[in-house]
Amino acid sequence: MIVRLPGAHPTRCRAVIHGDLVFAVAVSPDKAPPCYEQTKRALAAIERSLAEAGTHKSRILTATVFIADMTQKPEMNRAWDEWVDRSNPPMRACLGVTLEGQDLVEIVVTAAKQ
Amino acid sequence: MIVRLPGAHPTRCRAVIHGDLVFAVAVSPDKAPPCYEQTKRALAAIERSLAEAGTHKSRILTATVFIADMTQKPEMNRAWDEWVDRSNPPMRACLGVTLEGQDLVEIVVTAAKQ
Amino acid sequence: MIVRLPGAHPTRCRAVIHGDLVFAVAVSPDKAPPCYEQTKRALAAIERSLAEAGTHKSRILTATVFIADMTQKPEMNRAWDEWVDRSNPPMRACLGVTLEGQDLVEIVVTAAKQ
Repeated sequence: MIVRLPGAHPTRCRAVIHGDLVFAVAVSPDKAPPCYEQTKRALAAIERSLAEAGTHKSRILTATVFIADMTQKPEMNRAWDEWVDRSNPPMRACLGVTLEGQDLVEIVVTAAKQ
Repeated sequence: MIVRLPGAHPTRCRAVIHGDLVFAVAVSPDKAPPCYEQTKRALAAIERSLAEAGTHKSRILTATVFIADMTQKPEMNRAWDEWVDRSNPPMRACLGVTLEGQDLVEIVVTAAKQ
Repeated sequence: MIVRLPGAHPTRCRAVIHGDLVFAVAVSPDKAPPCYEQTKRALAAIERSLAEAGTHKSRILTATVFIADMTQKPEMNRAWDEWVDRSNPPMRACLGVTLEGQDLVEIVVTAAKQ
């Protein structure tokens, strides 16, 4: 069975649950703040989707962090390091890409339910 | 058991099936058309691989859409919105990256068989 | 159960094992060499993580190769083609992105244990 958590757009969703796996994506809902704040807010959105899907950041398997400006990676890392469950760090990749509009960070995670 | 669907290159393939999961990648076979048309053709190629793998766009879990020019995202979205199963929208991320040659879009999906 | 293989940073890890799936990421430990050599070294690091996780390059399902300079894709491909198990080629996507510092390539794979 596939469960889909709807987001802002009717043609895609912010999280999908299938078997023991949860896939979630988030950007910051607020586009004004700098990279550190946007990362905090995107991670908080991920955390809410994981909770809704019945899991938790301690069971994240992988994270892919896309940032609009690689010179801001230390600021993204600062938000990440404050947020992550240090007993259960995921595999993570961070890539500099072009994001839409004023988005400075977009985060995709795969988590396990158990 | 792992089943691999061969593509144009002997050292990689266009889709892989493992258990209940199918992974597929596609670009447009024609490089001349603009982003909307290339997206339509890449999505059609994804759909053919999913059919061959025994699944369907209604069971896509995640899609990652890489585009060469973020200003063309509305054109990619137009093709996506026409194509997607609106009752079963996947989690989706869209990133602006450098693609090879005249490719304007490259799409990676994970789908469930059931 | 989730098993995490620690890497250089305490807040993320280089590989995660969950059920029958293994997720691994690598860059070249040496940043001086050109793209071909960095790719070889990143692939060797992936191979070590897969071995530690109880699997092998012949069971890689997907690979995402991020390169800092798309004009170097032929050099990345040369290292890939020498390394890959040609009887078991993964689904692969290659994207040009901004990487950190002197990294020329970063590789993420999903592999099956069985």
